Amino acid sequence: MSNVIPLKSDKASVPNGLAALNAHVEKGMAEVNAVIIDKMQSDVALIPQLASHIIAAGGKRLRPMLTLSAAQLCNYRGNRHVALAACVEFIHTATLLHDDVVDESDLRRGNATANAVFGNQASVLVGDFLFSRAFELMVADGSLEVLAILSRASAVIAEGEVMQLITTNDTETTEDAYLDVISSKTAALFAAACRVGGVVAEAPRPEIEALDSYGRNLGVAFQLVDDALDYSSREATLGKSIGDDFKEGKITLPIVLAFRRGSEDERNFWRRCLEDLDQRDGDLEVAIELMERHRALDDTIERARHYGAKARDALELFPDSDLKTALNEAVAFTIERAY
Amino acid sequence: MSNVIPLKSDKASVPNGLAALNAHVEKGMAEVNAVIIDKMQSDVALIPQLASHIIAAGGKRLRPMLTLSAAQLCNYRGNRHVALAACVEFIHTATLLHDDVVDESDLRRGNATANAVFGNQASVLVGDFLFSRAFELMVADGSLEVLAILSRASAVIAEGEVMQLITTNDTETTEDAYLDVISSKTAALFAAACRVGGVVAEAPRPEIEALDSYGRNLGVAFQLVDDALDYSSREATLGKSIGDDFKEGKITLPIVLAFRRGSEDERNFWRRCLEDLDQRDGDLEVAIELMERHRALDDTIERARHYGAKARDALELFPDSDLKTALNEAVAFTIERAY
Repeated sequence: MSNVIPLKSDKASVPNGLAALNAHVEKGMAEVNAVIIDKMQSDVALIPQLASHIIAAGGKRLRPMLTLSAAQLCNYRGNRHVALAACVEFIHTATLLHDDVVDESDLRRGNATANAVFGNQASVLVGDFLFSRAFELMVADGSLEVLAILSRASAVIAEGEVMQLITTNDTETTEDAYLDVISSKTAALFAAACRVGGVVAEAPRPEIEALDSYGRNLGVAFQLVDDALDYSSREATLGKSIGDDFKEGKITLPIVLAFRRGSEDERNFWRRCLEDLDQRDGDLEVAIELMERHRALDDTIERARHYGAKARDALELFPDSDLKTALNEAVAFTIERAY
Repeated sequence: MSNVIPLKSDKASVPNGLAALNAHVEKGMAEVNAVIIDKMQSDVALIPQLASHIIAAGGKRLRPMLTLSAAQLCNYRGNRHVALAACVEFIHTATLLHDDVVDESDLRRGNATANAVFGNQASVLVGDFLFSRAFELMVADGSLEVLAILSRASAVIAEGEVMQLITTNDTETTEDAYLDVISSKTAALFAAACRVGGVVAEAPRPEIEALDSYGRNLGVAFQLVDDALDYSSREATLGKSIGDDFKEGKITLPIVLAFRRGSEDERNFWRRCLEDLDQRDGDLEVAIELMERHRALDDTIERARHYGAKARDALELFPDSDLKTALNEAVAFTIERAY
């Protein structure tokens, strides 16, 4: 347990829209953070240095919050959900590290990415370490059902990332193909995070399925909004840069809609920018203008509302409670952060 | 199960020195190959394409052979060792894919690397997929003890790879630091491969520990010889290129010994080539000459013999048998392939 690197306080990074949910899981999340700090340690000092760079950078910690709150919604009284929530965050962090290498990203949440600071090589290997560590934690928990859920989710995430790689620069990508990508790369872990909470609580199957459905639909809504935000202009408030997807030629729903709704001239613009990656000054502004003209951003958010509604309906199986209300508010936050 | 990509026959890739061991596990290895083909499939066609590129490229399949033969040495009569041997190979393959990205390698066993053919991005992501798939296979097997062994080994491998990254270009690296690297990045999986065989056979603890020790010492010997071969000239017969480690400034035992035994002028040569990576025509030839002058390659093989002897002694716990002889011959092969 050498080289202990502290995380900065996470309170600051909880947005208002998640405050109610956070209040319900605050004590558990403090324990989750302690597990994360403990388990990212290694005698190889570069590992906790790099891991803490990305983990401490904050983020909403939405996925482990979902594991804790799903367990609580099922009246779980034990403590296994804490370590498993940390596993979920480790898997997420490992995929972020590898994503940033694959995307050659320099910025994440307004901070330099781990690969920008420590190099691609270290990011790939520390991602592997965190992923292995997540499985060690699960093995220590001892539930084969949980291991099955999270190993399956991990394989599906990797499949989704490969699918995304294939659709990159392909302006013919359909909305359904895009949905396959985000269902795999994002929603699978949201679903698994929630399902694990129900499983440790030994909830009845219909409740576990409802939690899975809540997480899955929330995850799709989350990614849709994220993809719209990549073309919105609230860079300063979000600590996000805009236009990253455009620069990489990543095909997201705003592009899919604008391309399909556009004229042949417009389609040639999209092909030049996204297929040939021949981008000039002002192209991003033109892209955003075309998206606005064709309501591509608004309709991406509208699609997100559809999945948000499904997420809320999935929770209707549970009796009303403050926690259920907070989980519904998390759906609303996920979508409304677009404004 | 779409996109089934066949593996070419592996018989051709079994070297003479492993023929006896191969004869003992041949039937099991055919089943292992069938599991590998089956489990590397995905609806995302690029995954089996890339996976089969590296898996079908051959290689000795030494690690899964060790799992099968360790189980057989403990008189195992079941079939669980087959899927677990495939897990071991998947973990190995995932680390190879990531290694080649980290090392920016173009050639592996005389063939273009997956990253050279399919790109770094796909190699990182398909590595993640194979790694996740390995855990899915282990979960299907259902043994928490096996999961603990292989998740621990995976974390240790990642730690070893990060250690190697840190020692790269550092000519002050000690022999002990080098041994830490190869014990983690290579020997940990050899040990785990053997241990898993003993565990599924429900062998007595002393036998399991003996198998672990055999694998660990064999793994160290294997990597020592591999690192010597990177400076030997049998490129054509081995399908290996020489000088890759030198080009990258990777600090292996031949370097450690030649640097320490050399004059200050020679050390300045090593520093220029390996720290500054300022390499000129003829430098590799000079490096090999210096290694020969200081017996650095011979002594690296001599160190490997030491670990080989430990591996053989670990097996002495088991009664004599043809399989035990074959396992001892595998140790001899590992070392003698240097000549």
